[in-house]
Amino acid sequence: MTDDPINIPTVSGVVDIDVDTAYSQIKDMRIHGAGRIARLAASALKNYVENTNSSDREQFYNNIMKEGKKLRSARPTAVSLPNGVNIVLASTRKSYNAGESSDNIKEATIKAAEQFVHNSLDAYNKIGEYGGKRIRNGDTVITICNSEAAISVLKAAHDMGKGIKIICCETRPLFQGHKTAATLSKHGCDVTIIIDSAARRFVEKADRAVCGADAVAVNGAVVNKIGTSQLAAVAHEARVKLMAAAETYKFYADTMYGELTEIEERDATEVCSEEYLKAYPNIKIRNPVFDVTPPENIDVIVTEKGIIPPSAASLVIKDLIELM
Amino acid sequence: MTDDPINIPTVSGVVDIDVDTAYSQIKDMRIHGAGRIARLAASALKNYVENTNSSDREQFYNNIMKEGKKLRSARPTAVSLPNGVNIVLASTRKSYNAGESSDNIKEATIKAAEQFVHNSLDAYNKIGEYGGKRIRNGDTVITICNSEAAISVLKAAHDMGKGIKIICCETRPLFQGHKTAATLSKHGCDVTIIIDSAARRFVEKADRAVCGADAVAVNGAVVNKIGTSQLAAVAHEARVKLMAAAETYKFYADTMYGELTEIEERDATEVCSEEYLKAYPNIKIRNPVFDVTPPENIDVIVTEKGIIPPSAASLVIKDLIELM
Amino acid sequence: MTDDPINIPTVSGVVDIDVDTAYSQIKDMRIHGAGRIARLAASALKNYVENTNSSDREQFYNNIMKEGKKLRSARPTAVSLPNGVNIVLASTRKSYNAGESSDNIKEATIKAAEQFVHNSLDAYNKIGEYGGKRIRNGDTVITICNSEAAISVLKAAHDMGKGIKIICCETRPLFQGHKTAATLSKHGCDVTIIIDSAARRFVEKADRAVCGADAVAVNGAVVNKIGTSQLAAVAHEARVKLMAAAETYKFYADTMYGELTEIEERDATEVCSEEYLKAYPNIKIRNPVFDVTPPENIDVIVTEKGIIPPSAASLVIKDLIELM
Amino acid sequence: MTDDPINIPTVSGVVDIDVDTAYSQIKDMRIHGAGRIARLAASALKNYVENTNSSDREQFYNNIMKEGKKLRSARPTAVSLPNGVNIVLASTRKSYNAGESSDNIKEATIKAAEQFVHNSLDAYNKIGEYGGKRIRNGDTVITICNSEAAISVLKAAHDMGKGIKIICCETRPLFQGHKTAATLSKHGCDVTIIIDSAARRFVEKADRAVCGADAVAVNGAVVNKIGTSQLAAVAHEARVKLMAAAETYKFYADTMYGELTEIEERDATEVCSEEYLKAYPNIKIRNPVFDVTPPENIDVIVTEKGIIPPSAASLVIKDLIELM
Amino acid sequence: MTDDPINIPTVSGVVDIDVDTAYSQIKDMRIHGAGRIARLAASALKNYVENTNSSDREQFYNNIMKEGKKLRSARPTAVSLPNGVNIVLASTRKSYNAGESSDNIKEATIKAAEQFVHNSLDAYNKIGEYGGKRIRNGDTVITICNSEAAISVLKAAHDMGKGIKIICCETRPLFQGHKTAATLSKHGCDVTIIIDSAARRFVEKADRAVCGADAVAVNGAVVNKIGTSQLAAVAHEARVKLMAAAETYKFYADTMYGELTEIEERDATEVCSEEYLKAYPNIKIRNPVFDVTPPENIDVIVTEKGIIPPSAASLVIKDLIELM
Amino acid sequence: MTDDPINIPTVSGVVDIDVDTAYSQIKDMRIHGAGRIARLAASALKNYVENTNSSDREQFYNNIMKEGKKLRSARPTAVSLPNGVNIVLASTRKSYNAGESSDNIKEATIKAAEQFVHNSLDAYNKIGEYGGKRIRNGDTVITICNSEAAISVLKAAHDMGKGIKIICCETRPLFQGHKTAATLSKHGCDVTIIIDSAARRFVEKADRAVCGADAVAVNGAVVNKIGTSQLAAVAHEARVKLMAAAETYKFYADTMYGELTEIEERDATEVCSEEYLKAYPNIKIRNPVFDVTPPENIDVIVTEKGIIPPSAASLVIKDLIELM
Repeated sequence: MTDDPINIPTVSGVVDIDVDTAYSQIKDMRIHGAGRIARLAASALKNYVENTNSSDREQFYNNIMKEGKKLRSARPTAVSLPNGVNIVLASTRKSYNAGESSDNIKEATIKAAEQFVHNSLDAYNKIGEYGGKRIRNGDTVITICNSEAAISVLKAAHDMGKGIKIICCETRPLFQGHKTAATLSKHGCDVTIIIDSAARRFVEKADRAVCGADAVAVNGAVVNKIGTSQLAAVAHEARVKLMAAAETYKFYADTMYGELTEIEERDATEVCSEEYLKAYPNIKIRNPVFDVTPPENIDVIVTEKGIIPPSAASLVIKDLIELM
Repeated sequence: MTDDPINIPTVSGVVDIDVDTAYSQIKDMRIHGAGRIARLAASALKNYVENTNSSDREQFYNNIMKEGKKLRSARPTAVSLPNGVNIVLASTRKSYNAGESSDNIKEATIKAAEQFVHNSLDAYNKIGEYGGKRIRNGDTVITICNSEAAISVLKAAHDMGKGIKIICCETRPLFQGHKTAATLSKHGCDVTIIIDSAARRFVEKADRAVCGADAVAVNGAVVNKIGTSQLAAVAHEARVKLMAAAETYKFYADTMYGELTEIEERDATEVCSEEYLKAYPNIKIRNPVFDVTPPENIDVIVTEKGIIPPSAASLVIKDLIELM
Repeated sequence: MTDDPINIPTVSGVVDIDVDTAYSQIKDMRIHGAGRIARLAASALKNYVENTNSSDREQFYNNIMKEGKKLRSARPTAVSLPNGVNIVLASTRKSYNAGESSDNIKEATIKAAEQFVHNSLDAYNKIGEYGGKRIRNGDTVITICNSEAAISVLKAAHDMGKGIKIICCETRPLFQGHKTAATLSKHGCDVTIIIDSAARRFVEKADRAVCGADAVAVNGAVVNKIGTSQLAAVAHEARVKLMAAAETYKFYADTMYGELTEIEERDATEVCSEEYLKAYPNIKIRNPVFDVTPPENIDVIVTEKGIIPPSAASLVIKDLIELM
Repeated sequence: MTDDPINIPTVSGVVDIDVDTAYSQIKDMRIHGAGRIARLAASALKNYVENTNSSDREQFYNNIMKEGKKLRSARPTAVSLPNGVNIVLASTRKSYNAGESSDNIKEATIKAAEQFVHNSLDAYNKIGEYGGKRIRNGDTVITICNSEAAISVLKAAHDMGKGIKIICCETRPLFQGHKTAATLSKHGCDVTIIIDSAARRFVEKADRAVCGADAVAVNGAVVNKIGTSQLAAVAHEARVKLMAAAETYKFYADTMYGELTEIEERDATEVCSEEYLKAYPNIKIRNPVFDVTPPENIDVIVTEKGIIPPSAASLVIKDLIELM
Repeated sequence: MTDDPINIPTVSGVVDIDVDTAYSQIKDMRIHGAGRIARLAASALKNYVENTNSSDREQFYNNIMKEGKKLRSARPTAVSLPNGVNIVLASTRKSYNAGESSDNIKEATIKAAEQFVHNSLDAYNKIGEYGGKRIRNGDTVITICNSEAAISVLKAAHDMGKGIKIICCETRPLFQGHKTAATLSKHGCDVTIIIDSAARRFVEKADRAVCGADAVAVNGAVVNKIGTSQLAAVAHEARVKLMAAAETYKFYADTMYGELTEIEERDATEVCSEEYLKAYPNIKIRNPVFDVTPPENIDVIVTEKGIIPPSAASLVIKDLIELM
Repeated sequence: MTDDPINIPTVSGVVDIDVDTAYSQIKDMRIHGAGRIARLAASALKNYVENTNSSDREQFYNNIMKEGKKLRSARPTAVSLPNGVNIVLASTRKSYNAGESSDNIKEATIKAAEQFVHNSLDAYNKIGEYGGKRIRNGDTVITICNSEAAISVLKAAHDMGKGIKIICCETRPLFQGHKTAATLSKHGCDVTIIIDSAARRFVEKADRAVCGADAVAVNGAVVNKIGTSQLAAVAHEARVKLMAAAETYKFYADTMYGELTEIEERDATEVCSEEYLKAYPNIKIRNPVFDVTPPENIDVIVTEKGIIPPSAASLVIKDLIELM
């Protein structure tokens, strides 16, 4: 019932991929993770520039804007995707608006794409460092799902010699917690797996909770894998502080103007076997992918630019809007 | 990974089983459910009486007390088991203390065993009736695990024509929620399955939560399948009232004198596949079977003798102690 | 818009009224207040006995039981009504079951009716005394609606020389708070009226809250005039303890077996003028008469038999069931 | 007892009114609503410029500053009034400080006044758009009092085809909720009126709460019509998120330097009839106009510049201080 | 500033003391502790009987009732004192009412006094046993003040080999926590002392809190040394369960009829030095001896008759009233 | 056991002290209070410049940076110390980076040191003014420890004629509350002293709580004398708003990058007498100096730049980082 941890494609840096392929991979969910998706889109924009032979600045500008629009449409509910595309194309636009030549615009775009991918990867290090320091010696930390940013924090704390113990919620329906546990165990950490609904029992003796984020709204609410909100609720009840790890390009600027984060639902077969579903055709399955953790359940959000309380999300979004 | 719903033995009434077999079935967990276990033990006591040829009242009394002790030891952490055995043997003792003949003591014991099984089964009807009335027309009710008493309540509400909708938490690790969903769907109810950690999201729009109980402590805390406590926490947060359905023989008298309810842990392979466990030998698995829902998260407990707030658990226990 | 405080009929003790008139007055809501209704019904039963010429014990018994049934049906959602009727008729039944003569049964019934009315009135004194003691010198007490039992408590505290200050919520839609304020001001108390939705502001500096009860459920929840629950919520938030004053015959025994308290809705013209309603025919009005205050918002319930925490409501109900 | 909805003067845009008349209208409360008051004051400043014949820049500058001071003093507890006056006069001062001619200063002042009125009106559209998007399809929304900004949000959500249902608290003592209900019903919305103290009961099944604001303090607390704070308390308890709609000129900069928002009390006859007050001369009436909703009960504040959490109020105030 | 732990008189069992001396010792607070006071009073009653030569049953009965009244008046705010006296004299009254001879009444009184002292001392063992079982292996337990019943629980848990760690709040102003720490350290326990206001920090990692009780009210509120309520508040916040240890004769029956527990204030010199008080004559000192812990902050109350939730205090009081 | 209020050195402004002496005084804790420490360090830097005869700009720059480093190392856990040193040396660096002469750099440094001391002292006035306004007429204010900033607020409110009453927690173990009480009493205020653990009882009727701060973290958490967090908890429970008074140089910028505030522990003899410690050598003493009050327990932080909610601490830190 669990998907194989080995087969999920990893995008470590800039990859060579054209816009159409990137579009399909994102659309068909063959690629997971907000960071990976954004980096793939930036890579595709770079690829587009390198392979276009348009030398007319108007034409090039209009074309790449269209490519950007296409990429953004691949997954309308993602936040990192439009942010990544827009951050790269902001440099394109700036260069274009300054009346620069086609070559200069292209160069600016390529540089911006490379910079975005670099910053995105470097963000893991910074988030790891800042978040890791915030964990104390001997802390027991509970986590959920499989977030690169959250894992960075846990690895960093381990590497600082803090002797932490980690409890991974298995993260139904796809058991991504197993993957996190495997990664951290291989890294030398002390890891325990529990079922998701045992969290209230185990969080009582934990010292801290750590999660990733798929999106952060203007009020500091964190959209993340289903189950995060429930873990946050019981952590809050037990006075265990929750640290969300999120690169700044996951902050969702449009929430400042009222957009709601849409929550996708996935296939029923992730929850029940096909046999079961056939045997009981009247039983409905609800399988939302994400949930929303309210800001009052979150202590801090660790970004690559520093640690902020969720109430400062509007500041990050203001900076992001100026950037784009 | 889920156990087959079909193969779990059902004990509908008095069965013909000798003490040793009952002891093994209980000890080896071949029989599940607090009610079924208690009824099996009562049946075994009846069987013992019917097959003993001891006509000496002293000898018979001492022997059946030993059989009772043996049965109680089959699963030291169960509550319904000693309660069932003690309730039956209380009649034996009373008859013995009154100086009655061996035959009379035997008759009293058989009658008590039959009465216990009958009352235990009838309790489902009463609990269903009382609890069902407490559900309002059109309510959405969230439930967890596979409790006969809780299912009685839901079926009764359905049969009263209340048009309820039921959300079943899947109940990891053994997915007993699938069984509950199947039973209720066959009964004609509107049923939806969700993963356990989606409860905070769905409980917000629910009207009521219903669960069973493996044991009830003197302070009204309810011991039930792991996950119940977490569901209770998020239901409480959402002002959704939780009704626990529990026969009175599930109330744990010894908690009045300080005994703690012990929580068993089960095998790691219920949580992760054997392959996974072999691949990551350093990963620990914690798999407690039950958790404890604090009384402040419970609205009422429905028993076959009426509905009580959890604060009245000490009254039920006082009555139970007088009974035994 | 407010009904005239002067015209509400007061039932001070046993009145001379036949069953049919009592039935109509209760049914048509010409009589208000749980205590008044119960006493009226008891009076009507006494009247029936005095005016019947049936000398056959079977016939008399069957007839008076029918009269009781009729009275109970006058307002199916009241709790004091069936309790009052049943308490009186319990004596009838006892006498009948003991095989007594028609005259003796009649005498027992009359005595029970008189006793019920007497106890009901005396309950105000006892509730006043017990509740009044619980208020401290110089306390500011916030109250809502127009409950004789609650007013007893406030008058008693005043008469004990405690120098209390009283804040009356006006109690929309019928402004019963004006009546309470008038009664207490005439009694010499220091009284302030506020609008209902100013309670959160004023409760912060209050020391105690006092309310009446139309019914008390088995879990200690108190059914009272709409707005009580909201006052209880903000009092609880401000750590101001709420004392509910309720005669024991307001405890609702059937909730022990799952009955829900039904909440009537009254006419839209109590909320908006008829002109307004005609001008905006699409606007709906919701006007429930009562709401349910959860036990966790209530400190104690003062009855004529002593003060209990809401968690002991099940005890009172047990005693009540034995009585009837 | 309720003031007539029809007779309240509406200030839709720039009106022709001299400072003295504006001063009186504001002082005597013949004009209601923070936005209307601010626009009236801006209009009066424009009118002053147009009718003054002072051509000496010093003299003009000193005079208009005096007019501004007079207008601000008309209602010392309002926040929009000094903000509106100061925003207009900031342009005057800037032009004066730049050494510009009397005519230029006048022109700058007129333009600033017109701009302020325009922005103030346009703010309703923006707030409607941003806030409306934040409401989901089929939501039931509870609201209180009669705020143009809050109504904008509700109309916008309706116009987006979201099929919302609206519950209006009647808003004692002046029943402004009737006015809101009428406006929204005429707009085609599904509207229900309840009494204020029924909110705890109805909010449980609502999805969102919306209110306006008379002032917003530096800690994000919202000053609004009495009753808002109580609605916010019960909404918060029921996990129903409260959105406050407030133009940025309602943020109260002086709270950053310790000023407290003063709460006026209005006449007793708004609460009780004169007959009642005469009949019971010792009864006191407390009738505060506003209350303060603490930031922890507010999800977001919708301004014309975007949606912010209450914790970002200090940012808006910082911007406002720079503006003035 | 702290009173010497060595000089406090210990009353281990029945002592030989006349009523006048006992009265003075209690009145002048030369004897501390609710249990010691009650046992001293019982001893004095026994002494009175042994030394009276009145052989007239009327005279004897009236005299001993006067002696009882005198003893009760020695400290009007204590609860154990009237309970102890009344429990002993209940036997006297019963014997007198049965028309027994003077000698028989005396004998009944002596026996009752001895029984009371015996039960009171034995209560420590039972409370220790029941409470001790409720503590888990390796628990860290936080405690306050110097209660024999609470110390019994901690010693019992230690003696059961549970390896507990104990944190003693110092318990200002008289530092009774030092005494508790000394006693437990001598008993072999692992003990840490903290200042009272560090409790919020240390309770977070504690597993359980234990306190004694000077009185228990009908709603389950516990009156105990000042500081208990604050510890209870922060324990509750941290989900650390508080167990109050209280013999049943500490339950305050009169609270059932509205009596409030009065809180004495003691001398200012317990808080500040005399020099300080002279230097700053305008500074006031408030020094209440007890505070009231609300029932919602208490998990269970351990009595010698078993463990109850605070909501069952009314039951214990009912039993107590029947006893007296 | 209490240190003498008279002997604590007061640093009113710039003092003449060399770096080594300042270093020792800070290191050996002969000087208390975050403000005094920072001003002493600034004074020492000024003294260093005035007494150095280095005329080489490189050499001077390197030397003074070393002196700064030495001063910062005197108490690694203080926050005001590095902030004070860094703010002064930021001017040094700026002048140096601008290529200015040795004399100019010196002058810039001296001016910056004087400015820092001046601003630090002036901050008390501003904080007093802003915070004082926020207190209402007749308020009862509870405070803890001995913070100059908090005292400024209380004195200012008194001087504004608000007629406030002040409750000082004694502040174990060093009784700094006695000092605060003495200062305020001499100032003419109405002062009451209570023991720390009586706060839950007295805060219920207080209107406001005021404390100082040793450091403020990026999430708005306030580090202050042990006991502050507990007072904050019970104030929050009682809806009493807590105002923390903190100069901006107490905001801890490094928390933005994950640094945790370290909490020192002080000597056991502050808590128990040496005799006691010798008598019970196995008893451990935990004596942390500070605790951390979470932002959700704080209403506002008053700084010399205005009042902010704790959620805006990240803004102050951003400004501070730019300054240094």
